[in-house]
Amino acid sequence: MMQPQVSIIMGSTSDLKVMEKAAQLLNDLKVPFEINALSAHRTPEAVESFAKGAEARGIKVIIAAAGMAAHLPGVIASMTKLPVIGVPIKASLDGLDALLAIVQMPPGIPVATVGIDGAQNAGILAVQMLSLADKDLATRLDAFKEGLKEKIVKANDELKAISYEFKTN
Amino acid sequence: MMQPQVSIIMGSTSDLKVMEKAAQLLNDLKVPFEINALSAHRTPEAVESFAKGAEARGIKVIIAAAGMAAHLPGVIASMTKLPVIGVPIKASLDGLDALLAIVQMPPGIPVATVGIDGAQNAGILAVQMLSLADKDLATRLDAFKEGLKEKIVKANDELKAISYEFKTN
Amino acid sequence: MMQPQVSIIMGSTSDLKVMEKAAQLLNDLKVPFEINALSAHRTPEAVESFAKGAEARGIKVIIAAAGMAAHLPGVIASMTKLPVIGVPIKASLDGLDALLAIVQMPPGIPVATVGIDGAQNAGILAVQMLSLADKDLATRLDAFKEGLKEKIVKANDELKAISYEFKTN
Amino acid sequence: MMQPQVSIIMGSTSDLKVMEKAAQLLNDLKVPFEINALSAHRTPEAVESFAKGAEARGIKVIIAAAGMAAHLPGVIASMTKLPVIGVPIKASLDGLDALLAIVQMPPGIPVATVGIDGAQNAGILAVQMLSLADKDLATRLDAFKEGLKEKIVKANDELKAISYEFKTN
Amino acid sequence: MMQPQVSIIMGSTSDLKVMEKAAQLLNDLKVPFEINALSAHRTPEAVESFAKGAEARGIKVIIAAAGMAAHLPGVIASMTKLPVIGVPIKASLDGLDALLAIVQMPPGIPVATVGIDGAQNAGILAVQMLSLADKDLATRLDAFKEGLKEKIVKANDELKAISYEFKTN
Amino acid sequence: MMQPQVSIIMGSTSDLKVMEKAAQLLNDLKVPFEINALSAHRTPEAVESFAKGAEARGIKVIIAAAGMAAHLPGVIASMTKLPVIGVPIKASLDGLDALLAIVQMPPGIPVATVGIDGAQNAGILAVQMLSLADKDLATRLDAFKEGLKEKIVKANDELKAISYEFKTN
Amino acid sequence: MMQPQVSIIMGSTSDLKVMEKAAQLLNDLKVPFEINALSAHRTPEAVESFAKGAEARGIKVIIAAAGMAAHLPGVIASMTKLPVIGVPIKASLDGLDALLAIVQMPPGIPVATVGIDGAQNAGILAVQMLSLADKDLATRLDAFKEGLKEKIVKANDELKAISYEFKTN
Amino acid sequence: MMQPQVSIIMGSTSDLKVMEKAAQLLNDLKVPFEINALSAHRTPEAVESFAKGAEARGIKVIIAAAGMAAHLPGVIASMTKLPVIGVPIKASLDGLDALLAIVQMPPGIPVATVGIDGAQNAGILAVQMLSLADKDLATRLDAFKEGLKEKIVKANDELKAISYEFKTN
Repeated sequence: MMQPQVSIIMGSTSDLKVMEKAAQLLNDLKVPFEINALSAHRTPEAVESFAKGAEARGIKVIIAAAGMAAHLPGVIASMTKLPVIGVPIKASLDGLDALLAIVQMPPGIPVATVGIDGAQNAGILAVQMLSLADKDLATRLDAFKEGLKEKIVKANDELKAISYEFKTN
Repeated sequence: MMQPQVSIIMGSTSDLKVMEKAAQLLNDLKVPFEINALSAHRTPEAVESFAKGAEARGIKVIIAAAGMAAHLPGVIASMTKLPVIGVPIKASLDGLDALLAIVQMPPGIPVATVGIDGAQNAGILAVQMLSLADKDLATRLDAFKEGLKEKIVKANDELKAISYEFKTN
Repeated sequence: MMQPQVSIIMGSTSDLKVMEKAAQLLNDLKVPFEINALSAHRTPEAVESFAKGAEARGIKVIIAAAGMAAHLPGVIASMTKLPVIGVPIKASLDGLDALLAIVQMPPGIPVATVGIDGAQNAGILAVQMLSLADKDLATRLDAFKEGLKEKIVKANDELKAISYEFKTN
Repeated sequence: MMQPQVSIIMGSTSDLKVMEKAAQLLNDLKVPFEINALSAHRTPEAVESFAKGAEARGIKVIIAAAGMAAHLPGVIASMTKLPVIGVPIKASLDGLDALLAIVQMPPGIPVATVGIDGAQNAGILAVQMLSLADKDLATRLDAFKEGLKEKIVKANDELKAISYEFKTN
Repeated sequence: MMQPQVSIIMGSTSDLKVMEKAAQLLNDLKVPFEINALSAHRTPEAVESFAKGAEARGIKVIIAAAGMAAHLPGVIASMTKLPVIGVPIKASLDGLDALLAIVQMPPGIPVATVGIDGAQNAGILAVQMLSLADKDLATRLDAFKEGLKEKIVKANDELKAISYEFKTN
Repeated sequence: MMQPQVSIIMGSTSDLKVMEKAAQLLNDLKVPFEINALSAHRTPEAVESFAKGAEARGIKVIIAAAGMAAHLPGVIASMTKLPVIGVPIKASLDGLDALLAIVQMPPGIPVATVGIDGAQNAGILAVQMLSLADKDLATRLDAFKEGLKEKIVKANDELKAISYEFKTN
Repeated sequence: MMQPQVSIIMGSTSDLKVMEKAAQLLNDLKVPFEINALSAHRTPEAVESFAKGAEARGIKVIIAAAGMAAHLPGVIASMTKLPVIGVPIKASLDGLDALLAIVQMPPGIPVATVGIDGAQNAGILAVQMLSLADKDLATRLDAFKEGLKEKIVKANDELKAISYEFKTN
Repeated sequence: MMQPQVSIIMGSTSDLKVMEKAAQLLNDLKVPFEINALSAHRTPEAVESFAKGAEARGIKVIIAAAGMAAHLPGVIASMTKLPVIGVPIKASLDGLDALLAIVQMPPGIPVATVGIDGAQNAGILAVQMLSLADKDLATRLDAFKEGLKEKIVKANDELKAISYEFKTN
């Protein structure tokens, strides 16, 4: 069986519709990962057990998503040396509460925060970290980034096809 | 007839769709309660009469919900020694106006504020206060909290059932 | 030795200049209390040990203060049935980050939040909770509230002493 | 003795440094007024007594100032038919909490809100209301507004006196 | 023909769905009024002509509604001695931009601001101002406020009719 | 073939539904323009190539639209002497993030920012700049502005047609 | 005498400490300019006279600064075809009120908004507009931008001079 | 000479007073690093040259600090596969503009954002990433984290030394 390198944690299955973009990104780049539901507030013991055991299980990077008073990323970060990527989930106040509750960590315990509902970027950031010691993965990341450029090129083609009397391209 | 221990107050019946979660929680934990509609601004005399008489009627905790320039919780708190739990209702500005109008009370008159539309949490907080002097209720609260954990465990099972090529759990 | 009924927790000694108003209030109303420094992020084990043991040690109410991505009140609330009062400390963004990180708790785990830097109100709220089962304390709380009124009466006298040509009082 | 036409209300003497601009404006325009300290939260009975008796005492307009969760203007407005002008005092969150707690009144009970710390404007607004039925006061208000224009003209003269090589006026 | 006492101004017909509550209130209380569309930015000359002529035409109070960078109320207020009531219309940023652009007027030119989309309250505030010199209108305003109380009483009856096992009223 | 004078840049085709109002305005006023999709983050080389070559190609004004952490306008502005008009696109946080990321440029590199989703205004601003040296275009802009006034006049007619018992116009 | 090309407008002399950076920039780049104090609210007639006459006097670009409910830039923009650059002045709410009151203009009347207190950038933006038809000025702007780069190079040298044991440059 | 593993970038020497905490942290944990001043807006070519060459020079992680419309971290991230840590600098709007301009990156190009002025945390996060492949560094990071705990223990001792009549510890 594969050894997971990235662990995606979320507080409820309702976060999955956002977080599946992180899973898809990792899957596309062939990074073994796991997904678990844990709650900083409802199952603190399970969170502690998870966070303290992650490194020993071979996990390299943790992606933790939470909304509202989003404590999960910070709580996990306080219990592991592994880098923790925080994804603020938009559940209230347009996600501003979750963003501040994740990013404004006090000195000593950082959370690498991405944008509100920024699950795909969380996956990419995890891959960037892993790529520091994995040349093959770095190559796959390059290919992925090329794909992003192609989308813009295609978008540009679509815009050029739009016709106005005084439009010149 | 039962003696109500918690009184839920709201400014209009339109708040009920939020506040019924407080009622349901109290009902589930077998705490006698009452629900009334009172307006700090339209029926100030009724608010005063309610607030000043609540303790004598046996009420222990008051849950007051309001939106916009939400004065009801603070006004009631100014007229009773009982702890008042404030629930900011989202009616404008994503509920931020109600949150600030409830939580930012001046020194001397606190309102125990929960999150925006946080009716269930208001109910739980009331139960926590009552549990200080009611062992049986404390036991029922424990059981309720166990139920929350089970939901996470079930959510975790659902996440484990999701299949990706590089997903390891 | 006295049995503490209220426990005041803060993340660093720098919070003391705000939180001493909670201590003073409890002291003035003769409520035995303790003060400890614990960090949700730096000493999670100590927080867990504290939170899980508080009820057995006779603590009735916990007052937890924190700034920035303020997780301490919510983390403690997740580990005890006791009511937890959260005090958002103004350390950045005028305290708005701490307020949201404390008050916007997800369903199941409430924190009774007071205003930004609202330490005295946290003390009063704790006293209100304890007063539900302590008539003598309720009486002392009444006397305290009377004192607040006297301050306003005195303020009114000062305003009346101000003289303008067209001022009539 | 003069009959006051405008009543200025504030929650504490610390608000006076802002509100004295309202008093000065009324005094300059020879409008009889009174100043009182009342607290919506600490002395609700006094507030009620004041608000319900104001019209009978000959008061025409009430100016109420408050900070934080600023309930005083709205509470007074709920107890009188007189127009109530609300002045949000900057005490926390740059005054945004007070502004929202005053201006976002629910349907039925308006408060005529001016800007944060906008005491002089509160005075002018009261004069505008009184001027509807007082031609002499209207004339004095005209003269005051002319004075504002003169300040700008003088400011313009100062700016013209500044010299740069390429400045042309 | 009736002489209008209140003039309702708005920037476009799209504001009418909000502002018709002001018109309805004035109509219900039998206050003659007019409605016009004027734009501070598109038809500044018409705004100036309107504002400078309003008092001579017998207008007593102006209600001006605007969204976004809402200049209309302030611009009108700068050109008349009449009290101007500003209604921030929610068109972007939840109406916060309009609120700030209306309420934060510099010293000298107040706008009596009501809440976001607070058209009915604007109408009531206008009536309160007119009632200072119109006893009959004051009486009709009393009756209107009684109607608001009855709605709360009816709401309370509806809440009492809701049945839970542990609900006591 | 026409020489484009204005270049409209956006990050993706999804921005087109907002930005087509800029294109339409330019087209209506007979200003030759082009539309391209470029991403500050995905195709930085293409952005650089575009920005550095724009002036030589005869472009006079650049309109750049972006959402979220909207860097495109500022990045282009750093690579050209041409005036750059920035259009914040509402994609998250009601567009406030994009507005701040565009308008708050550090000293030295301004972006002429219009309102959130303010594409038509971006087009008008570009025309105003071009009109400084193009009398014919200035005349067409005058005619366009007259059209805006006519809309208000028509809106006023619609409002006058609304009937209430106490409405006087 | 020189013909001014840029007109700097502000509401009071207190804005000069911010706006002198715009004046200095224009002076350094040898652009003839004028400075005037005008108030949208206190001297609307003077604003109208200024705005409508600016183009005929040879003004090409107007820079208007204002704080709080900052109407001056938009009001001027409604009365001229010239491009108007708006500078939000920080006077309350960290300048956010002024920013929104300037940038969020309704369709039809744009204001080219720069950052809060962004006076120098307003000057540069004016120069960029003028440079479209003034090759010599364009050359001077190039030189100015080179100067900005030199500051960064010098800053880099200072950073390189800092010594740490593990610092490598 | 040492090979730098972390590169700290900032826009001006004024950011150094914040960013020296990142340098100190890296120095204390014996991580070779460099510090440079680069501006996304003033020296875009230098930024591009730096970003594209960093990986080849052996840099593993980039820490980029910026204030206001903070583009530097995102611009660098768009030109390298290396993980980029963004530090929002408080220069205006309490740092909220910089936070949003850094964290709200569009899909494809993440920036690992830490809190406002969170330079030390940026350093720790960089160390966490490097520790994935450097056991010795991981051990030094453990020791550092132990030091943080000791500070809390010492703070707790200080709090215990404070004496109140009803304080029990």
